[in-house]
Amino acid sequence: MKLTSDAKGVYVIAPTPFHPDGRIDESSIDRMTDFFVKSGVTGITVLGQLGEAPKMEHAESVGIVKRVLGRFRLPVVVGVSAPGFAAMRALTRDVMDAGAAGVMIAPPNTLRTDDAIAQYYRQAADAIGADVPFVIQDYPLTFSVKITPAVIRRIVTENPSCVMLKHEDWPGLEKISQLRAWERDGAMRPISILTGNNALFLDFEMERGADGANTGYCFPDMLVDVVRLSKEGKRDAAHDLFDAHLPLIRYEQQPGPGLAVRKYVLMRRGAIASDTLRKPGAPLTALARAEVDYLLARLAKHDPRARL
Amino acid sequence: MKLTSDAKGVYVIAPTPFHPDGRIDESSIDRMTDFFVKSGVTGITVLGQLGEAPKMEHAESVGIVKRVLGRFRLPVVVGVSAPGFAAMRALTRDVMDAGAAGVMIAPPNTLRTDDAIAQYYRQAADAIGADVPFVIQDYPLTFSVKITPAVIRRIVTENPSCVMLKHEDWPGLEKISQLRAWERDGAMRPISILTGNNALFLDFEMERGADGANTGYCFPDMLVDVVRLSKEGKRDAAHDLFDAHLPLIRYEQQPGPGLAVRKYVLMRRGAIASDTLRKPGAPLTALARAEVDYLLARLAKHDPRARL
Amino acid sequence: MKLTSDAKGVYVIAPTPFHPDGRIDESSIDRMTDFFVKSGVTGITVLGQLGEAPKMEHAESVGIVKRVLGRFRLPVVVGVSAPGFAAMRALTRDVMDAGAAGVMIAPPNTLRTDDAIAQYYRQAADAIGADVPFVIQDYPLTFSVKITPAVIRRIVTENPSCVMLKHEDWPGLEKISQLRAWERDGAMRPISILTGNNALFLDFEMERGADGANTGYCFPDMLVDVVRLSKEGKRDAAHDLFDAHLPLIRYEQQPGPGLAVRKYVLMRRGAIASDTLRKPGAPLTALARAEVDYLLARLAKHDPRARL
Amino acid sequence: MKLTSDAKGVYVIAPTPFHPDGRIDESSIDRMTDFFVKSGVTGITVLGQLGEAPKMEHAESVGIVKRVLGRFRLPVVVGVSAPGFAAMRALTRDVMDAGAAGVMIAPPNTLRTDDAIAQYYRQAADAIGADVPFVIQDYPLTFSVKITPAVIRRIVTENPSCVMLKHEDWPGLEKISQLRAWERDGAMRPISILTGNNALFLDFEMERGADGANTGYCFPDMLVDVVRLSKEGKRDAAHDLFDAHLPLIRYEQQPGPGLAVRKYVLMRRGAIASDTLRKPGAPLTALARAEVDYLLARLAKHDPRARL
Repeated sequence: MKLTSDAKGVYVIAPTPFHPDGRIDESSIDRMTDFFVKSGVTGITVLGQLGEAPKMEHAESVGIVKRVLGRFRLPVVVGVSAPGFAAMRALTRDVMDAGAAGVMIAPPNTLRTDDAIAQYYRQAADAIGADVPFVIQDYPLTFSVKITPAVIRRIVTENPSCVMLKHEDWPGLEKISQLRAWERDGAMRPISILTGNNALFLDFEMERGADGANTGYCFPDMLVDVVRLSKEGKRDAAHDLFDAHLPLIRYEQQPGPGLAVRKYVLMRRGAIASDTLRKPGAPLTALARAEVDYLLARLAKHDPRARL
Repeated sequence: MKLTSDAKGVYVIAPTPFHPDGRIDESSIDRMTDFFVKSGVTGITVLGQLGEAPKMEHAESVGIVKRVLGRFRLPVVVGVSAPGFAAMRALTRDVMDAGAAGVMIAPPNTLRTDDAIAQYYRQAADAIGADVPFVIQDYPLTFSVKITPAVIRRIVTENPSCVMLKHEDWPGLEKISQLRAWERDGAMRPISILTGNNALFLDFEMERGADGANTGYCFPDMLVDVVRLSKEGKRDAAHDLFDAHLPLIRYEQQPGPGLAVRKYVLMRRGAIASDTLRKPGAPLTALARAEVDYLLARLAKHDPRARL
Repeated sequence: MKLTSDAKGVYVIAPTPFHPDGRIDESSIDRMTDFFVKSGVTGITVLGQLGEAPKMEHAESVGIVKRVLGRFRLPVVVGVSAPGFAAMRALTRDVMDAGAAGVMIAPPNTLRTDDAIAQYYRQAADAIGADVPFVIQDYPLTFSVKITPAVIRRIVTENPSCVMLKHEDWPGLEKISQLRAWERDGAMRPISILTGNNALFLDFEMERGADGANTGYCFPDMLVDVVRLSKEGKRDAAHDLFDAHLPLIRYEQQPGPGLAVRKYVLMRRGAIASDTLRKPGAPLTALARAEVDYLLARLAKHDPRARL
Repeated sequence: MKLTSDAKGVYVIAPTPFHPDGRIDESSIDRMTDFFVKSGVTGITVLGQLGEAPKMEHAESVGIVKRVLGRFRLPVVVGVSAPGFAAMRALTRDVMDAGAAGVMIAPPNTLRTDDAIAQYYRQAADAIGADVPFVIQDYPLTFSVKITPAVIRRIVTENPSCVMLKHEDWPGLEKISQLRAWERDGAMRPISILTGNNALFLDFEMERGADGANTGYCFPDMLVDVVRLSKEGKRDAAHDLFDAHLPLIRYEQQPGPGLAVRKYVLMRRGAIASDTLRKPGAPLTALARAEVDYLLARLAKHDPRARL
């Protein structure tokens, strides 16, 4: 089952569960995978930035993917961003052989100029093979690379194997509108647009034409609901649910502590056994943990899933 | 009246009102100033980044400051960030002579290393004169300069005229806690900490020890209320009000369109006559404007001030 | 006399001479101007980065330009780069009124994407007026903005008032070849290409098609000779002279101390009275000064102009 | 044989030889290794930036190191910079087991603040193990990380296994002087300082206190001679030899084409069979190749080793 440009719904970004001593917690991978299925997601992305991918050795990375594939019957996308094409190709080969649906590629943060970005994706597509569907990760806040709509269109046009945009530019609403306008005009081949950036703008992104979310907020079940409500045209209901979660979404979106927040809540929800981050990641301070508890308590008044 | 380290409450970041043709709209400066006073602010900061300062000629800048000073009886802080110390000194001299309370200085985005940052503020303090109180603007998201708590302490220690931190690091909660801990231990002279970043974390920043807000969100009256409620220990009430505004806060916090959002709402609230941005600023798209209207309509259910 | 795309030879980048106390040294401006004329330059650029432009107040900047214009009968180009278009327009207006031939504009270091760069130059050309000839300063090492040949062509095509490229990309030889190839093919309007980067590649840049140099190396008379020899086809002679200077060129090309080196040698050559840099510029250390003296002594064996 | 802080002379940065089809050319590794020994180097660094390290898979990297170790009886340092500590540890373990003398670590280009840099090296030293000697690579031009002398001292002090600085800051002469002054004062433990940046300042770096060179200029035999002459106090002779090579050094120092120049000359000198760069590296243009030939022909008049 390969990833296609028809992908919709919520592709959850999976964290990597660790034991308190830093070893990979395989039984939590299973538990978390089941939790995501129950949440209603339509796919999963492993080894993204917030999957702590750079902290994994190659064999560990492949092991995680195989573990997820052994249990999850929906498409699995694997982050394969790497400083060189050799490592990218090696990981892609191993995970596609194991049954992954496609890969996600972020631009290296040294890229400048439109040509350099377009060339990078041509070379990457060539390195991984034209038969491997790939996702562009467009996250300038983290990668310091600005990709204009015109460059996205160019990448899509030059690489038939590009099927999805993980859209997390900020601000990014007009970008979605522009890409969808080009698709309507026939100026660009249609692709799947799933949005990230911890869902901070998911409410309006859906209205601008996104196909869903590709992020790892600790309530993926809420993301599923907002995407569904929005597609059903229940605008107010979508916003009501979204707004109830926004204080926590915002808190979790912080770079650095954000991942610790996410793992802490997933642990409290029973999806993983420990909220450990592999070094050099730092745990939440006591003060931050108390703030998250307070946010959960407030959220519980609006969403029973937050009653923990 | 000079700015001191006792500053508290809300120092609103003032936009610069323009006529539709780009000329400065002086009567809107007056109207806006009155609007801010009525909102309960304790001070005002003009010519910040979101005051479109770099688009102003020197004489225009001085003119704006004088206009505000002629009407506003509370402290006026002026942004004097400049690529060189000559322009910074010239503007500082003119606005302090006219009655400003102090100036705000952002680090140039080429600074790297702790020593370079500390040296820059020593040189800036020397350039403007030791008798001019100044504010450090700590906004890495925009300026790409990371200032650790230790470097802030060093700037405060090395420069007696440094009286305030405009805190808008992200994530930034632990930074406030660290600075306040040092103040309690006597390891650092107390300063005023007002927070920016469009108030996105004002709720918890107050609880971490901030003295108030120094930002320009289109409902400064709400900022005043949240600061007050938080100081009174009315935690839930503070969060309730804050959360009602968070969807719009988030929308306005976007770099670029955010300022257009702010001016649009201030125009709808009657504080300024036109939401024009001086070139090269772009107006809101029709779609974005409709989204803001929708957010205002939703907000009006919780806060009557949004019934426009 | 306006700057045109026929500009050739050496447009020397002038430093700004200061008295030891930091005041502008006007009689040294005169002396230096005469020195440059005697060196055989065909034009002069004032208030560039290495003219310490950001350290000058507006009135000082205009004063320097007028002083040079009062004595120099060749084209005077003025650096007008500024964080906003208002200051850029104000300085441009004043110096063009005083008789400048054109202005030079560097991109702000926050620009990313081809579109943003092209848009910036359209807006700048609009701000200064379509009748003011301008020079693109392409110096990614200092400004962190990468401008591809295609973007230069776009700027040239979109702005008839763009007449010159100050080429100091690194590496940059293929860029010159590409632009000249487009000109030959009719794919781009011909412009003047003068090269900077302290002339570190002037030898080959001339052979690739440059029209001359636009830099401030402390022996502009040598630059004049190398440009002439190269144009006359005396390749070996051009390289022999260039190579003799290369150890010092390289030493002076260092960012930071480089300008102190340049001023020190110009002082020793009698072109200016003092090698003072305005604060926060630092003087050469004793060790660095001795190294420059050693380089000059070695150079004197090949070029009698270095016998000081 | 472990790397120590007594390291001196020339540690040549080895390129990775490829067959024209991109496969690793093992017999050229042997030939090149012998060439370096004959050149008089005292050590070798493999898998640096200019060894095209990011283009290699893990197994290839280990294979290259083993091949070199099988033939080279002098210390072998291995570049192990990686986006995460897991990959760094894995490569370090494998190459130290195979007999490497130590490893070289560059800072990731996202690091800001002194604390973050110092912390990174503590974590890296912890990840690779306290018994593995390591080299700090200080190359802001490529990595965008500025490391002040005080931060280097801090890294040296906090990590007993730090034994060498690959110094390639630019400008960098005063940095060497500062570090050596601290060593003399007892304020810092002595370390080996070998300089890089393609030897562009090797002449003066030796006089400032460097122990030698750690770079891959295509005439390592010249580097050996300059280091020796400088240590013998033969200043003029050292500069005469250095200056003869400077036009080519400068040409090879260009980022991007520089590595192609290096490989081309090493091929012409018989050290490797092909000047192929692995994708996405580009070969020299015909024009650039002719320029290098011209530089070699000119150099041959001064240095017989350039008669090819």
